[in-house]
Amino acid sequence: MLAFPTIAALHAAYADGVSPRDILAETYRRLGQIDDPGIFLALVPEVEAQAAAEALGAFDPATKPLWGVPFAAKDNLDVAGLPTTAACPDFTYSPDETAPAVARLLAAGAILIGKTNLDQFATGLVGMRTPSPAPRNALNPAWVPGGSSSGSAVAVAHGLVAFALGTDTAGSGRVPAGLNNVVGLKPSLGTVSSRGLLPACRTLDTVSVFAGTVADADRVFRIMAGYDPADPYSRDLPLPAQPAGLPPGLRVGVPEAGSRRFGGDLLSEAAFDAGLADLAGLTGPAAKVDLAPLFAAAALLYDGPWVAERYQAIRSLIETRPEALHPTTRAVIGRAAEISAADAFAGLYRLAGLRRAADALWARIDVLAVPTYPRPVTRAELETDPIGPNSALGTYTNFVNLLDLCALAVPGRFRADGGPSGLTLIAPRGRDGLVAALGARLHAAARVPIGASRAAVPSPEPGPASAGPGEIELAVIGAHLSGLPLNGELTGLGARFLRAAETRADYRLYALPGGPPRRPGLLRVTDGTGAAIVTEVWALEPAAFGRFVAAIPAPLGIGTMRLADGTTPKGFLVEAEGIGGGEDITAFGGWRRYLAEGTAT
Amino acid sequence: MLAFPTIAALHAAYADGVSPRDILAETYRRLGQIDDPGIFLALVPEVEAQAAAEALGAFDPATKPLWGVPFAAKDNLDVAGLPTTAACPDFTYSPDETAPAVARLLAAGAILIGKTNLDQFATGLVGMRTPSPAPRNALNPAWVPGGSSSGSAVAVAHGLVAFALGTDTAGSGRVPAGLNNVVGLKPSLGTVSSRGLLPACRTLDTVSVFAGTVADADRVFRIMAGYDPADPYSRDLPLPAQPAGLPPGLRVGVPEAGSRRFGGDLLSEAAFDAGLADLAGLTGPAAKVDLAPLFAAAALLYDGPWVAERYQAIRSLIETRPEALHPTTRAVIGRAAEISAADAFAGLYRLAGLRRAADALWARIDVLAVPTYPRPVTRAELETDPIGPNSALGTYTNFVNLLDLCALAVPGRFRADGGPSGLTLIAPRGRDGLVAALGARLHAAARVPIGASRAAVPSPEPGPASAGPGEIELAVIGAHLSGLPLNGELTGLGARFLRAAETRADYRLYALPGGPPRRPGLLRVTDGTGAAIVTEVWALEPAAFGRFVAAIPAPLGIGTMRLADGTTPKGFLVEAEGIGGGEDITAFGGWRRYLAEGTAT
Repeated sequence: MLAFPTIAALHAAYADGVSPRDILAETYRRLGQIDDPGIFLALVPEVEAQAAAEALGAFDPATKPLWGVPFAAKDNLDVAGLPTTAACPDFTYSPDETAPAVARLLAAGAILIGKTNLDQFATGLVGMRTPSPAPRNALNPAWVPGGSSSGSAVAVAHGLVAFALGTDTAGSGRVPAGLNNVVGLKPSLGTVSSRGLLPACRTLDTVSVFAGTVADADRVFRIMAGYDPADPYSRDLPLPAQPAGLPPGLRVGVPEAGSRRFGGDLLSEAAFDAGLADLAGLTGPAAKVDLAPLFAAAALLYDGPWVAERYQAIRSLIETRPEALHPTTRAVIGRAAEISAADAFAGLYRLAGLRRAADALWARIDVLAVPTYPRPVTRAELETDPIGPNSALGTYTNFVNLLDLCALAVPGRFRADGGPSGLTLIAPRGRDGLVAALGARLHAAARVPIGASRAAVPSPEPGPASAGPGEIELAVIGAHLSGLPLNGELTGLGARFLRAAETRADYRLYALPGGPPRRPGLLRVTDGTGAAIVTEVWALEPAAFGRFVAAIPAPLGIGTMRLADGTTPKGFLVEAEGIGGGEDITAFGGWRRYLAEGTAT
Repeated sequence: MLAFPTIAALHAAYADGVSPRDILAETYRRLGQIDDPGIFLALVPEVEAQAAAEALGAFDPATKPLWGVPFAAKDNLDVAGLPTTAACPDFTYSPDETAPAVARLLAAGAILIGKTNLDQFATGLVGMRTPSPAPRNALNPAWVPGGSSSGSAVAVAHGLVAFALGTDTAGSGRVPAGLNNVVGLKPSLGTVSSRGLLPACRTLDTVSVFAGTVADADRVFRIMAGYDPADPYSRDLPLPAQPAGLPPGLRVGVPEAGSRRFGGDLLSEAAFDAGLADLAGLTGPAAKVDLAPLFAAAALLYDGPWVAERYQAIRSLIETRPEALHPTTRAVIGRAAEISAADAFAGLYRLAGLRRAADALWARIDVLAVPTYPRPVTRAELETDPIGPNSALGTYTNFVNLLDLCALAVPGRFRADGGPSGLTLIAPRGRDGLVAALGARLHAAARVPIGASRAAVPSPEPGPASAGPGEIELAVIGAHLSGLPLNGELTGLGARFLRAAETRADYRLYALPGGPPRRPGLLRVTDGTGAAIVTEVWALEPAAFGRFVAAIPAPLGIGTMRLADGTTPKGFLVEAEGIGGGEDITAFGGWRRYLAEGTAT
């Protein structure tokens, strides 16, 4: 049987004649073998799962990209025909409609195995706040499984399913991933419909994905993603796909000494540093950054007014039958009754200020790498203090949705005692593809197996280095290059980095008068009188490309650029007359080198 | 003296040798003559205003576009050296710093005359909720002046100042404009810094402008506008200028029968219908639209949690010395103490849903035209009910900031009894320029004097046909011209002909080798060595424009073209190197004439 059921492994098996019947039989057999009654709150009977597989017809991954792929969904997501309990039996209801996020997966051929356990009402990061038995951590039963999406993370870690849906408000899609050595993808807010998701904090919730590999998590995410006008919190964000390679000059930040929190656990600290070494191998030295504004935002999540969103979500239950709640959940959410609307707005103002402080951070770096949690927490610890260790687990996760960031938790190198140590990559909203590209490479570099399995992490496949159908390739040569002042214009339009390239050797490059920002002009010259100039090729959707071109000031314009790799993307050219008193900087071979070496002279 | 001190009239006078000393002397003389002690809460002494004018130096409208223009600011905006009272003497403080919005105007040469009266803490639409005497309505003292920016509107209506700053949360920048027959510009939220603005509802507040003409209001707005990273609610929105003419096909909506509210006042209703007839003369028949989602949002503003923002803004005062507040203000804001944080979030959720409903409206129309208020309110009415008539005044204004719209209140035709009847144009955020273009024409069409003066509204200068909101202008010079072989590429992409035009006289035109079809190349050359070349300007949607640009073969490309009409659309250029053996056909003045006359030889 498969060491781990990645989508690629399953589809390879199906292509080889294995049937979903065999895979599903193995799934249910292994579930019995694992014998953890805490993972699922509702299991789809095997006969029904087999019937769903039969109904898919012949293997057809082209039209059904998740054909025959078993998955699970957290039990705060509606699936018609199954109860939604949110781990509160007295709250149970029977939804008429399947959440659109789940429905898209079913339409893509995925097969639902069951609804998974969670911290009640998705309030918690430990996975223990449930009236059912809690799931066991897949690696070490002494540790908590993490939550709130406990069952989904554990189900993936055991390879019972290729992926599972969680939800993430304060870290529920990342902490359990890190504690079970699987990938946890927390999308940009509003990219996946939240209809049919029982709210925790409605302004901060998102569906999330647990999977064995970044490639699978990203694939599932992109099948679910899409603007939903019926969800008031859905957003029509540009969502660039993974770049073909890591963009050159990618700026990575890591916590400076004063921002590192491991709760005194040296094993976790050492493992994180090993992960940072892997990261440096991929992207070069990282910038040390102060996480103070992020930690300040994190503190707002439970100390500020957002807990009132959790209260509002279950208001009639907590006001009429508070005894129906788990005692810890009741204590946490019940506090909201004391918070006034004026307090709520004061919290929103404070957050708005902290977002500005975070903006300053994102002006310096593209991706932030943090531990997924300071250290693992044991079940024993929670018996004496059900709240403190839970709060500590959210140190590096609580601020992410408040600050409108995307995040990806990837397994890092094991600790010296064999325990997991996750890293989380964080970036501004819409950069999910960039984070996935880096995360896939970082996961592979850690050389750990997937979850509790023995399966190795596959090397990330290089994506297409050219534009997809309907996209337009654009070669940039100046201030739009990665890391330079106008690059944000590209990424803000959803542009996707494709490849570094050089022009054919018949261009001259000029530093134009004016600015800031200073800009170069590229001029085609007679063959033999020019040089090759460094470019980056990006892909844009037509409307984004149109807006980009419309905004380019004279004397710059867009023509056809001839690259050394034989391609002829659109690219920046300059009107010869507009060079005026510009300096010929062709000898530097590119704008970045001129900025580094040419302007100091 | 000037019938009304528009910026243009003032600058014409200054150019003719009139001095600011004369203008300011007249301002203070008229202020005494008007003898309304309710307009200003703090007046700049005449000697200080004169000193400020002296300090401007020689008349220099190019670098100081508001040189010598007197203005006033509502007394909830900070000006260093003057107290900020918000019409609550016990709240008074002395700001160290001038609000950036005001500072930009001072830097542009405007001269501050004083701080104006308001409904206390900008809470009210009547202008009567002040412990000082209320300003008198400039047209009819039996009516309320409108608020909360009462003094600013009245000061402009009397021509004491060219413009005055207000603030607008629920209509405070529009209702008093409508009641005093002046223009009230309510910018898109976040376009003008709110630092130094004492908050009413901090998430909904904006600085606003009262002026005699739309042109002046728009000019002042654009001088103030700009992203302020130190203001957490500042936004870096694209803010297109007024189009040169009304875009063809502009879609205007007006309230359908069930959405019309005039409080039974037939005179106001008839005057509004007269305004709609003017509007139809400008834009053709309007769509009748249902305002239900807008009215539902309006109801949230005072019935929902936002009043808690007003509470938070003055929390220590209202909690420790409630008697310091105006009784009505205390009653309105005091209610917030009963609202919980959970209620606050419930209100935010409801608003998010209503924004979606409003999105559906904005998919059908570009601009909505409504009455500025249902009917004027008398001071006598308020004595029996201080709240009901105030609420009614906000019928068409309360929803605008909640739904993130921009708005412009313009005077409409007078009622049969000589009273004013304002219209307000509303559009999605960022469309301030579009609304101004339409508003200027609608104001001129009403044929009413400015404010309480006898000055006529200047006609807006007609501009050439230009692209509509979101469209991109493209100038073509060759085979894409109307009737030539590639014109179908344009029309196939939905392009729309705008105008024939000529380039400035610094281009040369070449017939390029190759084809069919034969194509020209246009090259910018040194001033004085080229000629004007015939072009056609077309409008395309961004995606169509992007596809069009992507398909252009080398050596042609798209840059910025400089036309004789002063516009700079995108347009076809050629790489100088690509002209190769092309024939210089500049002397023909255009491709069509070359085809007719040049190729036969």
